[in-house]
Amino acid sequence: MKKYLAEMVGTMVLVLIGCGDAAGVMATSFAFGLSVVAMAYAIGGISGCHINPAITLGCLLTKRISAKDAGMYMLFQVVGAFIGSAILWVLTSNSAVEGTGANMCQEGITVTSALIAEIVFTAVFVLVVLGTTDEKKGAGNFAGLAIGLSLVLVHLVCIRYTGTSVNPARSIAPAVFEGGQALSDLWIFIVGPFLGAAVSAMVWRCIGSEEK
Amino acid sequence: MKKYLAEMVGTMVLVLIGCGDAAGVMATSFAFGLSVVAMAYAIGGISGCHINPAITLGCLLTKRISAKDAGMYMLFQVVGAFIGSAILWVLTSNSAVEGTGANMCQEGITVTSALIAEIVFTAVFVLVVLGTTDEKKGAGNFAGLAIGLSLVLVHLVCIRYTGTSVNPARSIAPAVFEGGQALSDLWIFIVGPFLGAAVSAMVWRCIGSEEK
Amino acid sequence: MKKYLAEMVGTMVLVLIGCGDAAGVMATSFAFGLSVVAMAYAIGGISGCHINPAITLGCLLTKRISAKDAGMYMLFQVVGAFIGSAILWVLTSNSAVEGTGANMCQEGITVTSALIAEIVFTAVFVLVVLGTTDEKKGAGNFAGLAIGLSLVLVHLVCIRYTGTSVNPARSIAPAVFEGGQALSDLWIFIVGPFLGAAVSAMVWRCIGSEEK
Amino acid sequence: MKKYLAEMVGTMVLVLIGCGDAAGVMATSFAFGLSVVAMAYAIGGISGCHINPAITLGCLLTKRISAKDAGMYMLFQVVGAFIGSAILWVLTSNSAVEGTGANMCQEGITVTSALIAEIVFTAVFVLVVLGTTDEKKGAGNFAGLAIGLSLVLVHLVCIRYTGTSVNPARSIAPAVFEGGQALSDLWIFIVGPFLGAAVSAMVWRCIGSEEK
Repeated sequence: MKKYLAEMVGTMVLVLIGCGDAAGVMATSFAFGLSVVAMAYAIGGISGCHINPAITLGCLLTKRISAKDAGMYMLFQVVGAFIGSAILWVLTSNSAVEGTGANMCQEGITVTSALIAEIVFTAVFVLVVLGTTDEKKGAGNFAGLAIGLSLVLVHLVCIRYTGTSVNPARSIAPAVFEGGQALSDLWIFIVGPFLGAAVSAMVWRCIGSEEK
Repeated sequence: MKKYLAEMVGTMVLVLIGCGDAAGVMATSFAFGLSVVAMAYAIGGISGCHINPAITLGCLLTKRISAKDAGMYMLFQVVGAFIGSAILWVLTSNSAVEGTGANMCQEGITVTSALIAEIVFTAVFVLVVLGTTDEKKGAGNFAGLAIGLSLVLVHLVCIRYTGTSVNPARSIAPAVFEGGQALSDLWIFIVGPFLGAAVSAMVWRCIGSEEK
Repeated sequence: MKKYLAEMVGTMVLVLIGCGDAAGVMATSFAFGLSVVAMAYAIGGISGCHINPAITLGCLLTKRISAKDAGMYMLFQVVGAFIGSAILWVLTSNSAVEGTGANMCQEGITVTSALIAEIVFTAVFVLVVLGTTDEKKGAGNFAGLAIGLSLVLVHLVCIRYTGTSVNPARSIAPAVFEGGQALSDLWIFIVGPFLGAAVSAMVWRCIGSEEK
Repeated sequence: MKKYLAEMVGTMVLVLIGCGDAAGVMATSFAFGLSVVAMAYAIGGISGCHINPAITLGCLLTKRISAKDAGMYMLFQVVGAFIGSAILWVLTSNSAVEGTGANMCQEGITVTSALIAEIVFTAVFVLVVLGTTDEKKGAGNFAGLAIGLSLVLVHLVCIRYTGTSVNPARSIAPAVFEGGQALSDLWIFIVGPFLGAAVSAMVWRCIGSEEK
């Protein structure tokens, strides 16, 4: 149970911090990425710190987590994201600050581009997760840092297409609070990241397996 | 005694660097966060590098420090903060540079929002401290880096509410030098961080304990 | 074979992320540098993560890789770069976003300055690679972080001269997609980085060898 | 001899990168700081990577280096700085780019403030060096990262006073190329950093010694 609660807390922090920032591309990218670094080292010892259903799917497809745990992880991640969005809503309701941090197709970006961007950049991100946390070829204690910094870079490139999701839980909760286009675009940020995770599970099975 | 002096020096550096910066949200966030990274690795071996009464309270509530040491740590942290503010005052008095870096409710932010923000973001920050420095489930040598980077991200989000305290010592000294609203708002930055630290001590006792 | 594929994937990510970013000097510098950090820890266990023909040349000249592997690494790096550029082309074709990230002499920069800049900054970058990955005097697990951060700093300085290549594979693919000046300047970004790598191999043989 | 050459190369890189950047406070701060991170892991195994006479003085005063080595280190650091400035001069001579990166009192800053700033911030910086590299209480392999990041933060605060030296070698060479006010202010950037280093050697002897 503790590991599910840890996923809930971690995803809450990710959404609260990442979606709560509004100081430009660099600041938002670092807010999301450093949240992952912080959570990876804070709760990594409890749950492994997925805090992202796409990562959980990637771990399921590479047989690093059971189906039951995968389902529970995703459930608690979404719950955590709603708590994060709710806290943000309380903060902004009482002040002159606005914004839910919801994902949607950015101005001038077609649905096709947005979907491809989410698939491609989730694939890159989950590949880093699978590679760095590999038991034999991985990065050991450096994994949390490498994963968090890779979320920074994914944001640096992808923000102008979709605001960057690569994480269905991070998109679902803010979309409910935002409504409108965020809700109608929401499917992109569920389908895209899950497809991307599947791609990187395949890539890693190809380049990360034991045979040379 | 040396550990108390180390806390004094560390908090002095934190206030001197963090409050002395004035080059925008990103720069201020990194100034505070990297000060913690630097001090964590420089004096961590001596005192554990709390340099923040809220962290000391979190450690007291999770029984990682004695009540006597906690009191002395807080005392020397406040003394260090005053030294940092005094050096900053000398520097700015002799030049065209201004600013004490004092915390206060930012424009358009209600007291309620400011207090909630300090509670919530201190809870996130102290949770990272408690998680990463946990003897069994913690992050070992990576703790200092994770804690410092989590102070960066807390600033990225919280600056627009309160200027970000999450640390009573860091607020008390600049408020005395600044006066006015900084002094009348000061209670927020003592009550908020201490409540936040209490929240995260409870959360960690819940998700970090031995039973599964 | 897996190590060649890993080089291909790594270089693809580097080009996709680095060339895909367009949010200013800081963001571009971090996009390239953090791509290397991410890939170093993700595929470093498979291929060593060169993802740059200049690094491969430096390793060949210091006898850390066989001539056959060096050739195959370079080939797969260029193939990976083309895949990265192609994905970027798909993304930008479907949207209002532009740019291939191709290298060329920046406005007001002579060919001489551009060539010297590429030689000098590649020499700095490859020197960090050779030093940090040295078996006896190197940085162990910290190498990936140090190398990636050194790519950040090389970009911070060199962008205003050439947009920063220091990596022939990273320049060849975008130049083909961009055409024009990018193609006619391309030789600078092949000759310069290779010369720079040769310089740093000499320097390292001088300061890094066993005798005192 | 190799360690002296390593100091020369390292200081050359520091000056070339740090003084060569001109993209704002954040970029300059990271250019200097990440240069130290990169060099610390690249040449740290050879010379310890001081690349700064103030650090060498701090090490001499805490008896970590012999007087003869200290003198040779400083000499080669200054030579390296001149090589870095010379390369930068070649690069800018051939192009529309300007700037030597020389230190001087910034507009509206008195000599007193500048001198105090250099003393105080060098003391902070060298304290991090002495603390993180302490054999028993230090940060082990994390030292290079902590030291480099602390140079970032020192720049974030100190740039508006003096452009930030905290390193006599880094100031001497650019001042000779720049002339004028840079030369007449140069004494500040020799006296200040050396005094600051002496202060932090005293502080560390006080808080870092064995007795509790």
